[in-house]
Amino acid sequence: MKKIILLFISFIWTIPGFAQTEDSLFIRKIYDEILSKGEAYQTLSHLTKKIGSRLSGSEGAAKAVVFTQKTMENYGFDRVFLQDVMVPHWVRGEKETAYILKNGQKINVPIAALGGSVSTPKSGIRAKIIEVKNFEELKSLGETKIKGKIVLFNRPMDATKINTFDAYSGAVNQRGNGASEAAKYGAVGAIVRSMTTLKDDFPHTGGMRYATGIPMIPTAAISTNGAELISRLLKEDNNLEFFFKQSCETLPDAPSHNVVGEIKGTEKPEEILVVGGHLDSWDLGEGAQDDGAGCVQSIEALRALKALGYRPKRTIRVVMFMNEENGLRGGTKYADLAKINTEKHLAAIESDNGGFTPRGFGMVGTNEQITKITQFKALLAPYGLHEIGKGSGGADIGPLASQGTLLIGFKPDSQRYFDYHHASNDTLEAVNERELNLGAASMASVLYLLDKYGL
Amino acid sequence: MKKIILLFISFIWTIPGFAQTEDSLFIRKIYDEILSKGEAYQTLSHLTKKIGSRLSGSEGAAKAVVFTQKTMENYGFDRVFLQDVMVPHWVRGEKETAYILKNGQKINVPIAALGGSVSTPKSGIRAKIIEVKNFEELKSLGETKIKGKIVLFNRPMDATKINTFDAYSGAVNQRGNGASEAAKYGAVGAIVRSMTTLKDDFPHTGGMRYATGIPMIPTAAISTNGAELISRLLKEDNNLEFFFKQSCETLPDAPSHNVVGEIKGTEKPEEILVVGGHLDSWDLGEGAQDDGAGCVQSIEALRALKALGYRPKRTIRVVMFMNEENGLRGGTKYADLAKINTEKHLAAIESDNGGFTPRGFGMVGTNEQITKITQFKALLAPYGLHEIGKGSGGADIGPLASQGTLLIGFKPDSQRYFDYHHASNDTLEAVNERELNLGAASMASVLYLLDKYGL
Repeated sequence: MKKIILLFISFIWTIPGFAQTEDSLFIRKIYDEILSKGEAYQTLSHLTKKIGSRLSGSEGAAKAVVFTQKTMENYGFDRVFLQDVMVPHWVRGEKETAYILKNGQKINVPIAALGGSVSTPKSGIRAKIIEVKNFEELKSLGETKIKGKIVLFNRPMDATKINTFDAYSGAVNQRGNGASEAAKYGAVGAIVRSMTTLKDDFPHTGGMRYATGIPMIPTAAISTNGAELISRLLKEDNNLEFFFKQSCETLPDAPSHNVVGEIKGTEKPEEILVVGGHLDSWDLGEGAQDDGAGCVQSIEALRALKALGYRPKRTIRVVMFMNEENGLRGGTKYADLAKINTEKHLAAIESDNGGFTPRGFGMVGTNEQITKITQFKALLAPYGLHEIGKGSGGADIGPLASQGTLLIGFKPDSQRYFDYHHASNDTLEAVNERELNLGAASMASVLYLLDKYGL
Repeated sequence: MKKIILLFISFIWTIPGFAQTEDSLFIRKIYDEILSKGEAYQTLSHLTKKIGSRLSGSEGAAKAVVFTQKTMENYGFDRVFLQDVMVPHWVRGEKETAYILKNGQKINVPIAALGGSVSTPKSGIRAKIIEVKNFEELKSLGETKIKGKIVLFNRPMDATKINTFDAYSGAVNQRGNGASEAAKYGAVGAIVRSMTTLKDDFPHTGGMRYATGIPMIPTAAISTNGAELISRLLKEDNNLEFFFKQSCETLPDAPSHNVVGEIKGTEKPEEILVVGGHLDSWDLGEGAQDDGAGCVQSIEALRALKALGYRPKRTIRVVMFMNEENGLRGGTKYADLAKINTEKHLAAIESDNGGFTPRGFGMVGTNEQITKITQFKALLAPYGLHEIGKGSGGADIGPLASQGTLLIGFKPDSQRYFDYHHASNDTLEAVNERELNLGAASMASVLYLLDKYGL
């Protein structure tokens, strides 16, 4: 009897250690399941090759809603439903044309209208082109030098940044605000160097906004090689002319949906954990890395937990957010509904930095929340997840912040992301199946820990 | 005066902190130099596109010796020299042919002779094929079931291993020893499933050895899709026949070279630090990831230190080892010469796991040596180098171990390595310039710390 009591006591005493072992064993099971029987790549193949690009309001986006809803239903999630959301509906129109005029000769360069841009006149725009690196330079040139010209914004992403998202942040205001900044001084068009550290021939599109009260001039991304060529030719001839033509337009808002799947919690169903990515993409490629990867990883995380027979204490939801790229309407709607329905969202994980090898998770929340998660480091390090701490969450889950939800951004290796971002080469071929699976497994592991230990 | 003394004392006291800052600033400079002005990719372009594959004894290998020697001379390294070494000279001969015979129909499958294999008779070999997963299964089948047949070794790499090199280790004995194991029981040929976790159509070659006293039977790698097809068809028909033909042969040993470049130490020139990769490659692709990447990263590490005006205390050598793939003669010769010349090698870094995003360094040495390096973790973590500790060094630097040299293996992310390893798709296109540069910078940073602090 003494022996039994002693055994019992020693069992009680070792519970923390036991839990640690239990957790590490379960996390290992998650990785085994996903690395050997993962279905994320197969789901992504359908999303990219059968459906393709999924710009908000497009046929592709509508098909993707149906497909992911059906995928989740087939997995037998407890509840799969749509949330209605009206989205901006911008269309590219015909393929753009652009060339440099050098001594009467036309040198074609690859451009792509920026999302939200107005069209050029049907006959295109032809004007002198002037290069600037930033808004200060633009301002110092002023109306005298800018009026009637096309402005080339040609500040490269800083290749010395280790995380390429930092390099992106340092350059992307040219794309977002360049047109209105240039229009302030009378420019007739704005051409923006593509957001990539590569020198290649792909124009990378992306969102832009017009400032109110300033003429809306057409704007497009140019390939980095194209931008470098103009820059070189301007050194020989500062009267160089440029021509471009695009027929994009903004149609009335269109109906669309977030897709939500959930497994109901067994003990605290009212506490919700979210994992998601955005279902919409730009229109040039197949939206594979951005953000097909994040969508299929999120579905896979829940599939794997279910396949392993895991019954969560809390409710786990996978969300396909609509319209991250040019409006964030889906993310905003999701948070609005959460508030209206007085739902309690403990934490939300977003994967929207590509499906590359996982490096960790960046968080936005209280110090207490973040500390709670960083305590899991030892469990996650064997899987290459070393970078766990403060960071950035994700655009779609951002609106949940005001409800006290911990925002967790999945952080894959960033080196190759901008090789494909918003360009026509963002196709299935840009995604490595093992890397994609490792991301899904790391997200499922954090979901498991969040569910087990709460916040 | 008091003030000056106080200032002086506080200066002395802060030296450790000061050095830390100085080191972190210099490491930042190394990354800036390599990420913005790096030449590794350009060197690799020449090595892969102008020279191509570099199997020991081949014209490509000879050209690579001349090219890398010249590259180092152009960089103005203090001394660039060759070390003579005789290498095995195996040649593939004509492209191999292989097919499955199913009801009189020929189904072609892609194979590639394994390095070191003998040829088939000119008319090829046709025999029944039998599948095994491992040597135990082979043994249990015994001569009764094996004699006169071709053995298919079809144990896949274990996809659940997080580091793919662990998965490789668990499968590669089929390639290295399969032929002799099968020949023990009277097999007439051995076909080995390619060493990759992908299911694709590339045969991955690699080294094999015949055991003494056992008949030498021809052996080849088959693509994973090919291996799976045979396995499937065998389930329908266990009398399935297979045909293969290869004309490879081993010629007499050929003269070749290690290429060595060095910057002389200013304070302790007798203490040597090595950084290197192997210049030879298999013959199917361009030897880009294996190991052109490691070669150009090693050269780049020294170029960058020199470009930054860094004058090392100790002698730093970059070594292009010859014949890692099928003999290790270069690595062995280098260590032999070090011993003969009573050189003191403190540490050697090898990059031979591909030019992917850096994750850390794995070491072989005394606990004291390894502890010394792990103390630099905080300096290296901002660059994504988290995995620094015991590990494996590198094949070419291995022979230096007996001289007390700390062996340091550069450890990039392993997920994509075996997608290309020893296959025809190991071309420049498999290498990402930023990832390659980050590796070079991480190697240069460790060289700097080793030089500054010794061991």
